[in-house]
Amino acid sequence: MGSVSVAGAPVTMLDLESCLGKAVAEVLATMLNYQAIVVPRSDNRITPGLSAIVGFGGKISGFIALHLTLEGACTLASGLLGMGFDEVDDIVSDAMGEVVNMLAGGLKKYACQSEELFKISIPSVIRGNDYSTHAPKDSEQRILSVQAGPCSLTVQLVVEQH
Amino acid sequence: MGSVSVAGAPVTMLDLESCLGKAVAEVLATMLNYQAIVVPRSDNRITPGLSAIVGFGGKISGFIALHLTLEGACTLASGLLGMGFDEVDDIVSDAMGEVVNMLAGGLKKYACQSEELFKISIPSVIRGNDYSTHAPKDSEQRILSVQAGPCSLTVQLVVEQH
Repeated sequence: MGSVSVAGAPVTMLDLESCLGKAVAEVLATMLNYQAIVVPRSDNRITPGLSAIVGFGGKISGFIALHLTLEGACTLASGLLGMGFDEVDDIVSDAMGEVVNMLAGGLKKYACQSEELFKISIPSVIRGNDYSTHAPKDSEQRILSVQAGPCSLTVQLVVEQH
Repeated sequence: MGSVSVAGAPVTMLDLESCLGKAVAEVLATMLNYQAIVVPRSDNRITPGLSAIVGFGGKISGFIALHLTLEGACTLASGLLGMGFDEVDDIVSDAMGEVVNMLAGGLKKYACQSEELFKISIPSVIRGNDYSTHAPKDSEQRILSVQAGPCSLTVQLVVEQH
């Protein structure tokens, strides 16, 4: 299991994955009142639809991406905002950006030690029917499959290797 | 012209756009020995192909995205790495991630005041034939069209509004 260099106390990818799992469960419980089932996934295939990505940098650097089908994004946004969505518009995209932002905030809270681990960027949201995402070669990644009520999502954590 | 809140001295979007223009010119001159022509663009239409995105967070938060056609990415990677590319593979994707990383480093260098303005994430690279990118509603953006020798690229700067 890889570790990423943090002055004083190393943080392993396993620690980060565990903290991200807690953040996912907390965000979905708070926002949607759903108990999330979070399962680590070994393949790294991402189905296009909508990807909300937030970067972070500091003692560790990386990004978190939330991947959903277009239908999945509408379902999650409907649950969050209490209104129906038939297609992914700017409101749905902004809501997915907010969710990945909260996941990064939760990861920071759970993984934080005595000092702040990283600063968080603002989210960028990709949507479409034909695209793939690529992480740098000198990075490690973990992928979580999440089921929360009717919502299926994939959460990807990519961290720079040192 | 909008300004983003930085303790002590405000940084305007015009400042950041100007610093990013300098960073673009420096990176392309250093890496490719090309004199870049950088022109601010008023429309925000992005053509799919390859988008390399790097986030930043700290006193200001946002992201920089480098957008190219797939052919444009091959041309730029060929110039950078001194070898030919017919299609966008992982080497081309990593090279475009490196370029956007250098642009963020250059922006930080030129925009930096007495204190560090932000920390930089690692790049994520999107490639495909059908996708669009979306910035949060509470953000400001500037788009630069860049021509450097045979390379045409678009550089997008998105910064959180306060």
